[in-house]
Amino acid sequence: MNYESQWREQIAPAEPAVAAAARARIDDLTKPRGSLGRIEDLAVRLCAIAGGIPAHAFERRALLIAAADHGVAEYGVSAYPSEVTAQMVLGLLGGIAAANAFARAVGADVYVADFGVRTPSPAHDRLIDVRCGAGTANLAEGPAIAAERVEAVVNAGVAAFEALRARAAFDTLALGDLGIGNTTAAAAIVAAFTHTPAANAAGRGTGIDDRRLARKIAAIESGLARIGEHSWRRIASEVGGFEIVGLAGVILAAARARVAVVLDGSIVTAAALLAGAIAPASIDYCIAGHRSREPAHSLALDALGLVPLLDLDLALGEATGATLALPLISAAARMVHEMRTFSEAGVATESVR
Amino acid sequence: MNYESQWREQIAPAEPAVAAAARARIDDLTKPRGSLGRIEDLAVRLCAIAGGIPAHAFERRALLIAAADHGVAEYGVSAYPSEVTAQMVLGLLGGIAAANAFARAVGADVYVADFGVRTPSPAHDRLIDVRCGAGTANLAEGPAIAAERVEAVVNAGVAAFEALRARAAFDTLALGDLGIGNTTAAAAIVAAFTHTPAANAAGRGTGIDDRRLARKIAAIESGLARIGEHSWRRIASEVGGFEIVGLAGVILAAARARVAVVLDGSIVTAAALLAGAIAPASIDYCIAGHRSREPAHSLALDALGLVPLLDLDLALGEATGATLALPLISAAARMVHEMRTFSEAGVATESVR
Repeated sequence: MNYESQWREQIAPAEPAVAAAARARIDDLTKPRGSLGRIEDLAVRLCAIAGGIPAHAFERRALLIAAADHGVAEYGVSAYPSEVTAQMVLGLLGGIAAANAFARAVGADVYVADFGVRTPSPAHDRLIDVRCGAGTANLAEGPAIAAERVEAVVNAGVAAFEALRARAAFDTLALGDLGIGNTTAAAAIVAAFTHTPAANAAGRGTGIDDRRLARKIAAIESGLARIGEHSWRRIASEVGGFEIVGLAGVILAAARARVAVVLDGSIVTAAALLAGAIAPASIDYCIAGHRSREPAHSLALDALGLVPLLDLDLALGEATGATLALPLISAAARMVHEMRTFSEAGVATESVR
Repeated sequence: MNYESQWREQIAPAEPAVAAAARARIDDLTKPRGSLGRIEDLAVRLCAIAGGIPAHAFERRALLIAAADHGVAEYGVSAYPSEVTAQMVLGLLGGIAAANAFARAVGADVYVADFGVRTPSPAHDRLIDVRCGAGTANLAEGPAIAAERVEAVVNAGVAAFEALRARAAFDTLALGDLGIGNTTAAAAIVAAFTHTPAANAAGRGTGIDDRRLARKIAAIESGLARIGEHSWRRIASEVGGFEIVGLAGVILAAARARVAVVLDGSIVTAAALLAGAIAPASIDYCIAGHRSREPAHSLALDALGLVPLLDLDLALGEATGATLALPLISAAARMVHEMRTFSEAGVATESVR
């Protein structure tokens, strides 16, 4: 059995019967039908993830931020040098980054998985070491990841998930990213999957000027030109990043464990495209936390058929958008299992219902 | 000194210098400039509310749901009879309503202020009695509230706020509404303030059919036809609701106390139009929690210059949308006072910044 088939056997697709039962209960709750709009749709998805009306409120939360460096950064595609990646890892572990502030606001712990930061960080109880190298090769000049190593990088993501499970109890996992140059790799992956020209997929990432944006587009075009067969393996090898391909493994492992996965921006959503290509049912466990400013993010969300919960013009990464969506998920879960139905509550209704 | 002048003296407008200092600090935090988008704008507003960089995280939360009945309900503008208002008050006090589920998801307590439900509820430690009558008169046929009583209804809202302060400690107040018929009154208020035809302001509220929508529009038109001089008093009297006019008083009292006010849907936002007409600076303390499905809500938000944080297709009321926005407010507050600046953290930057 090949790699993809093994994953497809291990991940249960959402059952239509569960979703139908969830929708029927939600329609009978003591509120005008449909009046909680997208929170109702979210609740249906949570029931599908749980395999029935959930008895828990999806409040055991964790953030996993996948970090790595990218060879393409040397090409001048970012406003920041690669050294910033390692500095920001230390910031996250020290609790002073945006993700830490947001995580405290929702009561979640922050973990960092090092998939290949150029400079490794000292051991830390919130740091998971799944290093695949000291950054990828420059995707503008050749394959970012050697073809024969792609599966191992996905498996590093699976290992990161299992290591996190050993350290923390959670039913909801917000995924994030960190890595100078990674919006370039993500835009290239999304462009390849969605057959979009590089200029339409590339965004300004950390806030680059026109000159750097032109270099970013040129780098993506170089990478895309080398991709002949549009398989996930080929895309991951030519234009991937260690943390992006690794995040695909995290998503697969989380779906196998029936954990709700909350996607962040273009990097994490590009990883979901890879995971979905390996095992389509893994997307049934994904919730789009927000819509970021990067054009590649909207392209990827559309390709996955996901509608994001938030739209706050964020462009930071680090799971910041996914984290802000976590309370909405709990509200949806609590709605479906804590509210009463009209018959349970004995509230008057008119024949119009 | 008249009523409006007294309020204008008591509410401090946001200081531009505080907002400028907040923006300067946010621009220097260890993240690409502007990368947290609307969370940054929200943080600036919170600094203005606090009068400086806040030392607290806006996590002492309360929900106040203003309830009342509306004479116009007898006109057939809702899918539910007036009896449902009292039943839903009991549901809220019993903890089984949507607002309770959402409030538990964000760790807030739910209080109900009875401004004039047709059937009073038994005393309850989460119920604040500020009754102004057993529902308003039918706005389709004459003034909903006697002109000489309008100020007293606003003052009932002030009393509700002070009663809540005596029972609970909070720095952030999510406001909601409950009352069969109240989207009709709110749409009429918004139509009057924004000079919008009734048909463009009226929405389907609890999910009414075309026949009831036509009656709703006709009721609003009758009310609007009686308003000659477009003063807030005249509007409140002709087409107001006890809970809507009362909520204006809650907003004024909260602004005076420098409490952050989180607006919910069309009813609470119509109340903000009244509060803003009495004392414009009160709007500086308001945050739009979400954009609901009701057309009057978007009209009112535009008139107030407020951009809502969430857009989840909600149409329930009960502070459900405002409640879901509370964690975003805490995240913004934590961002500005917990993140480090580049100079504090010693992170490398390139000259591009």
